Amino acid sequence: MSKRIAGPEIERLIQLLAKVPGLGPRSARRAALHLIKKKEQLLVPLSAAMGEAVEKVRVCSTCGNVDTVDPCTICSDPRRDTATIIVVEDVADLWALERAGAMNAKYHVLGGTLSPLDGVGPEDLNIKGLVSRIAEGGVSEVILAVNATVEGQTTAHYLTDQLDGFDVKVTRLAHGVPVGGELDYLDEGTLAAALKSRTAF
Amino acid sequence: MSKRIAGPEIERLIQLLAKVPGLGPRSARRAALHLIKKKEQLLVPLSAAMGEAVEKVRVCSTCGNVDTVDPCTICSDPRRDTATIIVVEDVADLWALERAGAMNAKYHVLGGTLSPLDGVGPEDLNIKGLVSRIAEGGVSEVILAVNATVEGQTTAHYLTDQLDGFDVKVTRLAHGVPVGGELDYLDEGTLAAALKSRTAF
Repeated sequence: MSKRIAGPEIERLIQLLAKVPGLGPRSARRAALHLIKKKEQLLVPLSAAMGEAVEKVRVCSTCGNVDTVDPCTICSDPRRDTATIIVVEDVADLWALERAGAMNAKYHVLGGTLSPLDGVGPEDLNIKGLVSRIAEGGVSEVILAVNATVEGQTTAHYLTDQLDGFDVKVTRLAHGVPVGGELDYLDEGTLAAALKSRTAF
Repeated sequence: MSKRIAGPEIERLIQLLAKVPGLGPRSARRAALHLIKKKEQLLVPLSAAMGEAVEKVRVCSTCGNVDTVDPCTICSDPRRDTATIIVVEDVADLWALERAGAMNAKYHVLGGTLSPLDGVGPEDLNIKGLVSRIAEGGVSEVILAVNATVEGQTTAHYLTDQLDGFDVKVTRLAHGVPVGGELDYLDEGTLAAALKSRTAF
């Protein structure tokens, strides 16, 4: 807003809300107004929740997950299979896999992908931590659950090289038709991969 | 998340973010993760801004605007034309009109529209406040800048009746073609109104 129509506190709130992914300048104004109107029901608890997050949230020193405890809930869960580590690029991927609930394994968050063009090298990712976890022993399989992008695959190849000397099976996610997906809308690469990896019916 | 994968503080933050207009359950997760990652740049200042808003934001007792001072910045602005009051449904409408910057008048926020079906009667809106502002004198024009909806127009008619006894001109926003709008996409009602209110070229 070029013209000052409300206190600087409200404009600052709008400016900061506009930086939240999913909100733009216009929806940030709408969000700020909604928060102010629903002060007791939403603004007060959200403000408190953010304050708590500022205080308590930390990065797990073992796997790179974010949690309020270190080691994180997953790393310290005794019911998890410690022999399998699922390597993901980002905490969001970890959460997505947990929602799928298909594996009861441990995780390792890289914090990105190798990208020479963006100046992201191996030392910028949490790769040393992964190698030392493998070196400690007890891990029999590393599942590279990186994105099926060029950067993701480059990172997967680099990790495979790094883990070459260890007695550990390195696997990757299957390529294929998404469940519920229609063939007509899929790209040729996915269809070719799905055909190549076809299974008995 | 059915399975507990992160501390309850993070899940509470996600739940509350999902209630912000513009964010759903999925984008709330993404937003929470982004906030946690950009802790110093975004989460800390946003948390502080929300805390400040909780502390300082109040509703203007004169016009119903939200601000950090009461009377609000607009009501206490000596450069504003006090003879004109623009009546709006919501603070968002006030902000929109201020961004347009076409008038330097005062405002009055009704806080909604009459809607018998939803049980919103005249006593639920800030109508008494408007009438007493007019009764105090000094106002020569009331612009009813309500939405061009059935409820908005019903409210406009009711307000016109309420202001009948006062020596004040009651006007409404012009109907017509939006600037930059294409005729082909406009409804018949708007086109008919634009034709009826045509002006000399």
